[in-house]
Amino acid sequence: MPENVNRQVRLAARPVGLPKRGDWNFTEEALRQPGEGELLVKVSHISLDPAMRGWMNEGRSYIPPVEIGAVMRAGGAGRVLASRHPGFKEGDEVAGNFGVQQYAISDGKGVRKVDTSFAPLARYLGALGMPGMTAYFGLLDIGKPNAGETVVVSGAAGAVGSVVGQIAKIKGCRAIGIAGGADKCRYLVDELGFDAAIDYKSEEVKDALKRHCPKGIDVYFDNVGGEILEAALARLALHARIVICGAISQYNATSPPKGPANYMSLLVNRASMTGMVVFDYADRYKEGAMQMAQWIAAGKLKAREDVVEGGIDAFPDTLLKLFKGENFGKLVLAL
Amino acid sequence: MPENVNRQVRLAARPVGLPKRGDWNFTEEALRQPGEGELLVKVSHISLDPAMRGWMNEGRSYIPPVEIGAVMRAGGAGRVLASRHPGFKEGDEVAGNFGVQQYAISDGKGVRKVDTSFAPLARYLGALGMPGMTAYFGLLDIGKPNAGETVVVSGAAGAVGSVVGQIAKIKGCRAIGIAGGADKCRYLVDELGFDAAIDYKSEEVKDALKRHCPKGIDVYFDNVGGEILEAALARLALHARIVICGAISQYNATSPPKGPANYMSLLVNRASMTGMVVFDYADRYKEGAMQMAQWIAAGKLKAREDVVEGGIDAFPDTLLKLFKGENFGKLVLAL
Repeated sequence: MPENVNRQVRLAARPVGLPKRGDWNFTEEALRQPGEGELLVKVSHISLDPAMRGWMNEGRSYIPPVEIGAVMRAGGAGRVLASRHPGFKEGDEVAGNFGVQQYAISDGKGVRKVDTSFAPLARYLGALGMPGMTAYFGLLDIGKPNAGETVVVSGAAGAVGSVVGQIAKIKGCRAIGIAGGADKCRYLVDELGFDAAIDYKSEEVKDALKRHCPKGIDVYFDNVGGEILEAALARLALHARIVICGAISQYNATSPPKGPANYMSLLVNRASMTGMVVFDYADRYKEGAMQMAQWIAAGKLKAREDVVEGGIDAFPDTLLKLFKGENFGKLVLAL
Repeated sequence: MPENVNRQVRLAARPVGLPKRGDWNFTEEALRQPGEGELLVKVSHISLDPAMRGWMNEGRSYIPPVEIGAVMRAGGAGRVLASRHPGFKEGDEVAGNFGVQQYAISDGKGVRKVDTSFAPLARYLGALGMPGMTAYFGLLDIGKPNAGETVVVSGAAGAVGSVVGQIAKIKGCRAIGIAGGADKCRYLVDELGFDAAIDYKSEEVKDALKRHCPKGIDVYFDNVGGEILEAALARLALHARIVICGAISQYNATSPPKGPANYMSLLVNRASMTGMVVFDYADRYKEGAMQMAQWIAAGKLKAREDVVEGGIDAFPDTLLKLFKGENFGKLVLAL
């Protein structure tokens, strides 16, 4: 059989700033067969997520860093080639934490079967995967939007942000998205039904928020940090809730990140700023996934994937698209 | 009668940095008698609060700024000289928002009678006044401490902070105070029963928090902002709550204030940071005041006032004591 070599991308060094080619190592390993209780997956899609940049740094975080020399951590999807695990059989399509490699041996933990007759495999890494869960629980459990309120989301054309805005609309809120570029902004309003979109590359976000949020921001879902977080803080409504989901503008900073200088807006507006990590909702993923699937089936929620066809060697360059704001929808590498 | 002139301190200019003598105007007005529904109060004690610095700035905040030329806003206490208000009679001792002046005409709004047989008048501007209410509602309603948790408070020897730490102890928490100077730190531990105190003038707060909070900080009550807020963020426990009550280290900054660079600790620790303004609890002040009085009567809560005997002309210099960290307990100017 030809399936005897597993090509892998390993972390070679902790990046300073944007990850460089030299921060990665390509290795090849002989493929082994699954042992008792294991399954072997042929990975066809690798998820690229902003959080990956954080996993490459040393230091305490919500998850241990990827060790130097280890296969890079990544979500992925693919097909079961062989299984000695009672829950899976050859031919099953699955999503899980498979790493940046062509094949993965798994003990089944965190692996779920997916239905490609309902949605393409890549969507299970996006709206029907972690990003969708992040949007669902982050907005509803932390943001707690009420009908009629104004919800603002940054990184709005990304995998998480695009879902946040659509759920806000489903819940009867006004949804304002912040994204980079006219195409993305048009997509948010014309395709996804956002009430307005702000192009941070061509407009002053602070002024635009003033215009689009005359009664202030009730929920701000932050994926980017930096100046956009400050602009949102400057426009909070009384009792506003800020969901801190990410800070992609800061992930590759080589100087110390800038904190929000106007955080005292939290006091002026009796507002809160709360961090969320999707893993905390693991025991409710089923609830979230079912609801998301229903909304998708009913045409209330649209999803878009930005699938790069490139093979495993394209991983380093594809990852950079996230930090340059080049992806449009959920970024996925197809092997 | 000799009571015919009312000396007042008015805001002459919006200060840049620390308020200077020239930012104030001293004026004298003929004293008038109260009209129908009014009372005339001879002010004997004026409350000095960090928040006053914010009221002197232009711009949107939780309360309109003091207008240029207006009598400076201030809490105060004194005795009713004459009343045509059904709720008050000559001789009543009262606390209210009387401004920085020797006499105040009031319509009775926000004025409450106090009992000087229970506590000295100045205490009704401290533990039994706004600072006490701020500590009570801020800690219990926003911080939501549970028995066994670690509560850290900055500005711990001040009017709010000293009460926060004591309520934390009453609720069965570990209480750690951050204050400036060995005297204040000794007072917190030896007199008020804090478990530990950190002298930010002689210790690295970050290291000291590590030592005193081996399991992390569950509730951080912030009165100071700046580097101490960052040190607390660096030491949060999972699901920590930060109460943003003030940021005295930033109030006189002439360059843009620094935001907490490590605010992403909120994400790592699934923690929250929430602003509070005591006025929101006006309809529950009675509950808070009764509970505070009970704790004081039972010897469970101690209060200390730093009463400066100086007359109205001493107001500008006395106010500065707050920003130099020179007060020890609730700062009050006695006329």
